[in-house]
Amino acid sequence: MPDLVAQHAAGVMSAAVLMTSAAELRAAARRGEWRGTTGGHCPAYQQANLVILPRDAALEFAAFCTRNPVPCPLIEITPPGDPEPARSAPGADLRTDVPGYRVYRDGRLAEKRADIRDLWRDDLVAFLLGCSFTFEHALVEAGVPPRNVEQGTMVSMFVSGLDCVPAGRFHGPMVVTMRPVPEAKVGLVRALSARYPHAHGAPIHVGDPAAIGITDLARPDYGEPVPIHDNEIPMFWGCGVTPQAVAVRARVAFMITHEPSQMFLTELPREGEHRS
Amino acid sequence: MPDLVAQHAAGVMSAAVLMTSAAELRAAARRGEWRGTTGGHCPAYQQANLVILPRDAALEFAAFCTRNPVPCPLIEITPPGDPEPARSAPGADLRTDVPGYRVYRDGRLAEKRADIRDLWRDDLVAFLLGCSFTFEHALVEAGVPPRNVEQGTMVSMFVSGLDCVPAGRFHGPMVVTMRPVPEAKVGLVRALSARYPHAHGAPIHVGDPAAIGITDLARPDYGEPVPIHDNEIPMFWGCGVTPQAVAVRARVAFMITHEPSQMFLTELPREGEHRS
Repeated sequence: MPDLVAQHAAGVMSAAVLMTSAAELRAAARRGEWRGTTGGHCPAYQQANLVILPRDAALEFAAFCTRNPVPCPLIEITPPGDPEPARSAPGADLRTDVPGYRVYRDGRLAEKRADIRDLWRDDLVAFLLGCSFTFEHALVEAGVPPRNVEQGTMVSMFVSGLDCVPAGRFHGPMVVTMRPVPEAKVGLVRALSARYPHAHGAPIHVGDPAAIGITDLARPDYGEPVPIHDNEIPMFWGCGVTPQAVAVRARVAFMITHEPSQMFLTELPREGEHRS
Repeated sequence: MPDLVAQHAAGVMSAAVLMTSAAELRAAARRGEWRGTTGGHCPAYQQANLVILPRDAALEFAAFCTRNPVPCPLIEITPPGDPEPARSAPGADLRTDVPGYRVYRDGRLAEKRADIRDLWRDDLVAFLLGCSFTFEHALVEAGVPPRNVEQGTMVSMFVSGLDCVPAGRFHGPMVVTMRPVPEAKVGLVRALSARYPHAHGAPIHVGDPAAIGITDLARPDYGEPVPIHDNEIPMFWGCGVTPQAVAVRARVAFMITHEPSQMFLTELPREGEHRS
């Protein structure tokens, strides 16, 4: 995983270390010793996107997430002012245990942070939303690794032509990820991903990018492009960047998120999804 | 279904009518022509518990639901002041489309209502939570009807000794439903219910009531008792009464719920759960 080398430059730990304990990875992030991607690490656990919003925007955002469960699979909401995800990782602290944070003011990226203790307020509400790293682990184990994992690049993400169901101030298009898959493996990959509804579940579209408003697969809106071979079909999944993009578009006064690809590691098992 | 006859006394529609269209049942409720149970009706659609709370309590309640997804499977939250469940049933109105409502003030039942239009406020937030009627339909179709469906009674519900994960002012024990199942059918019933994570999913316990703090199966805390035959095993599932019981215990100043067994009918298909 060459991306670990690149993204790990600032880290103290060896890039060769693949973490398996979610608690240890969180503790390393808390000590400032883990600043890299969480992709590929702790494959037994669910990883989560983080969005933190003030109380006044949080109810509409909660509504938005429930109305768009494919891109925004809710894992946990914390009560206002409470930084502990009491169900997903009891004892963890969302102000310190993510490798990196981004702070947005009035819809613009204002700064990047290693922790957010001094920014925490009594009116802040944290949202943990499922992440496709979780099902990528399953694809690797099944012998159908996604191209972005093989190449050590960020997954290709596109702003689709599919509208989310709006909720109050939050509205906009669904962001999707794209992974090219050999034609013969499409059914397997579809079935595997469908087992992880809290990691965006089954693909939202398979085949024709134009059918969902995407014009050029070589020019993703976020992440990096990947080669698509002759016998391969592009598969598209809902993406956890959607809720962040929607919150930026709504120009919320204050928002904190994780640094892209540096997720919160929960204690929830990857298999047997937590609702079943 | 003799319960339809009893519970339908106030209804204009014939008790012999089994509704299949969720939209027609909602419209009949809106016209004041449907005041009975929704159990057994519209088997192709997900049914939902309704809890309506003022904004100040709603964020903690949302957190509570995400922390206790087995008894409180979130289907949709509406933004403050918006009575339309835009994802679950576009165009529906949660103030009129449920057969019956209960209004609680300071944690006490204050009145029962046929509609709540005149009580609606800009700060009210509606929660739709999954209901076990949804998986009972699947059990009936598979030839293993629950005893309460066979007998036309309300399911037996018990306050268990299992604590929910608290969130702010909301805390308390999990309420569970009990259905006795022939020993040979336990595996089938477990597997069928597990397919419906938004209808409480797999059982939380099978076998020993004492293991989850229940002393007498003949004396349920809510609903009605059912006979248990010699070859039968009690199976227990999370119950959507849990969040209401927790909100009553927290003595929230104002809350509206559905009348027990008179659920909100969504347009979401029962099969292929909406997140997958």
